[in-house]
Amino acid sequence: MRIALLGVGLIGGSIGLAAREHVEGVEVIGYGRHPGRLRAAADRGAIDIAADSLEAALEGARICFACAPVGVLPELVRAALAAADRDCVVTDVGSTKQELLAGIDDSRFVGGHPIAGAETAGVEHARADLFQGAVWYLTPLATSEGLLYERLHRFLVELGARPIALDPATHDRLVAVFSHLPHVLANVLASQAAGRLLDHGEALRHVGPSFRDMTRVAGANTEIWTDIYRANRAAIVKEIRAYRRELERVEGLLEAGDVAAWNDGAREDRRALLESELAGAPVHELRLTVPNRPGIVAQVALALGRAGVNIVDMALSPAADMRSGAMALWIAGDEPAARAAVVIGELGFPVAEV
Amino acid sequence: MRIALLGVGLIGGSIGLAAREHVEGVEVIGYGRHPGRLRAAADRGAIDIAADSLEAALEGARICFACAPVGVLPELVRAALAAADRDCVVTDVGSTKQELLAGIDDSRFVGGHPIAGAETAGVEHARADLFQGAVWYLTPLATSEGLLYERLHRFLVELGARPIALDPATHDRLVAVFSHLPHVLANVLASQAAGRLLDHGEALRHVGPSFRDMTRVAGANTEIWTDIYRANRAAIVKEIRAYRRELERVEGLLEAGDVAAWNDGAREDRRALLESELAGAPVHELRLTVPNRPGIVAQVALALGRAGVNIVDMALSPAADMRSGAMALWIAGDEPAARAAVVIGELGFPVAEV
Repeated sequence: MRIALLGVGLIGGSIGLAAREHVEGVEVIGYGRHPGRLRAAADRGAIDIAADSLEAALEGARICFACAPVGVLPELVRAALAAADRDCVVTDVGSTKQELLAGIDDSRFVGGHPIAGAETAGVEHARADLFQGAVWYLTPLATSEGLLYERLHRFLVELGARPIALDPATHDRLVAVFSHLPHVLANVLASQAAGRLLDHGEALRHVGPSFRDMTRVAGANTEIWTDIYRANRAAIVKEIRAYRRELERVEGLLEAGDVAAWNDGAREDRRALLESELAGAPVHELRLTVPNRPGIVAQVALALGRAGVNIVDMALSPAADMRSGAMALWIAGDEPAARAAVVIGELGFPVAEV
Repeated sequence: MRIALLGVGLIGGSIGLAAREHVEGVEVIGYGRHPGRLRAAADRGAIDIAADSLEAALEGARICFACAPVGVLPELVRAALAAADRDCVVTDVGSTKQELLAGIDDSRFVGGHPIAGAETAGVEHARADLFQGAVWYLTPLATSEGLLYERLHRFLVELGARPIALDPATHDRLVAVFSHLPHVLANVLASQAAGRLLDHGEALRHVGPSFRDMTRVAGANTEIWTDIYRANRAAIVKEIRAYRRELERVEGLLEAGDVAAWNDGAREDRRALLESELAGAPVHELRLTVPNRPGIVAQVALALGRAGVNIVDMALSPAADMRSGAMALWIAGDEPAARAAVVIGELGFPVAEV
């Protein structure tokens, strides 16, 4: 299978390295605007062939990854869809989704966002294991084709990632609170602390581990983050406002000397968020039959994503008449598998465990 | 030399282990209200002798460490000063200083605060290397005796720590922004993120590394932190207010799409704060003569602390008539040593480099 990488930096390069290491029979075609970077990607073994145009890269490709900063993605994805075959799934790796998806109406497109590697850039940092165990959000359109979605999903699983389907608005809210807000908080904390030292005319650079942890992402790559802050500003501003309101409440608790329950609650909240995931849980195989119409696979994946069920792997086999298809889903853990069966049943599809 | 540890948990136990490993001829006497914990400290080798009263622990002690939560320190320090010899320096390890020092008027007392080990508790986590390379703030009183201050300073250097003198108000402002504010921010972030997931009815526990880093200290030990939040609430509330105001300004920048300079500034601020410290720099020995009156050593140490100069080691030798003393200071790095000479000259003391 031929895949096209439009952009061969950290993410594109890592997709290439991972694919060439883990996916049998893959051929990776790379294209990028900078010939030097494209050569570097070839030298690192991240691509098999360097194409000299976007159209050449897409010739015969079955999956196309648009790997570019958020600001240029809309144009790049449009160009990719114009050049791609009928049987090619086009996806991207941008960290915000609503803005991009608003401008796309093509059943070959599925939005994507791997949660990996935000702090460095360039193919020189690319690694074959960058996506090992990493969540890879997928935001299909309502009309995304099931077979194309399934192909992309399986490919990502082969790279070592864990694809999870989400609608774009929920995706953008979650990344606002889990990633963009933390970056804002780190920036403000770093500058406030630096200001305090200057106030006192001191050069005490003896900060503790909690400060180091909290500011690790301060001032992340400005080129990348200017785009992200712009593309997701509505969700981020909403999260900052909520955060400010809560800080004001905490000031009241501090002044009243009434912080114990608040502190206990935060510990409990963090524990719940980071609770160790299902490790070594038994994998269940669920089989269902779905009508072969656009969007149906995305609908199932989204419903399971909403329910917090992680699809370990999936397979789709259209019936001979192409009117329906058998879908197999592999789910880790007894409880999640049972939950998945309920969710799928509620969608109206008969489901059986093999 | 005999030292007394009042309290043998994580910090007291680690002082004992470090002293017994690194300080020649030391004898460590431990006392604590819980006989079981005292036995555990003896079993771990953190103390030589378990005393059965505070008074017994202080008999013949030359340094006494009050190692207790901030809330009970005032009472413990008062009792220690009442029982200690004339020639015993009493110090504490509390993480806020103004409240404690406001109630103490005794030239044998020097406030202290090691920046180490906030996230665990109990002698079972004590380690001989806990203070290796760690900053240990000292907040002498205006009347603290020079010889006692010097004894404590040298002892801490032998433990592996880096003592830095600060006035208590500056200390409390610095820990508010470098430690207490980060804890508040982590708590609020953990709970806000948990709330978002509940809003969406999801159980997506797939958070990225930036979120893990930012919330590592969320919900730290409630017993310890309730005291800290109470004792330093004025400084903490001030920092939270400043932080909220800055968040509001950032909302404006986000809405205007004007975040590049702000993001670059945060990166620069963090870099300046965490700039690698002088490693392997040449150590200079400065000699000065100071009048032998209360507070003079503390005055020199505080002036150097304010100037950002780290005193690697110090020694004080009173003249035969006890009216003046020779003081030797070891300072790492050419530039800090030159700065130290200027600062000491400005205090009116002649200084020479050996």
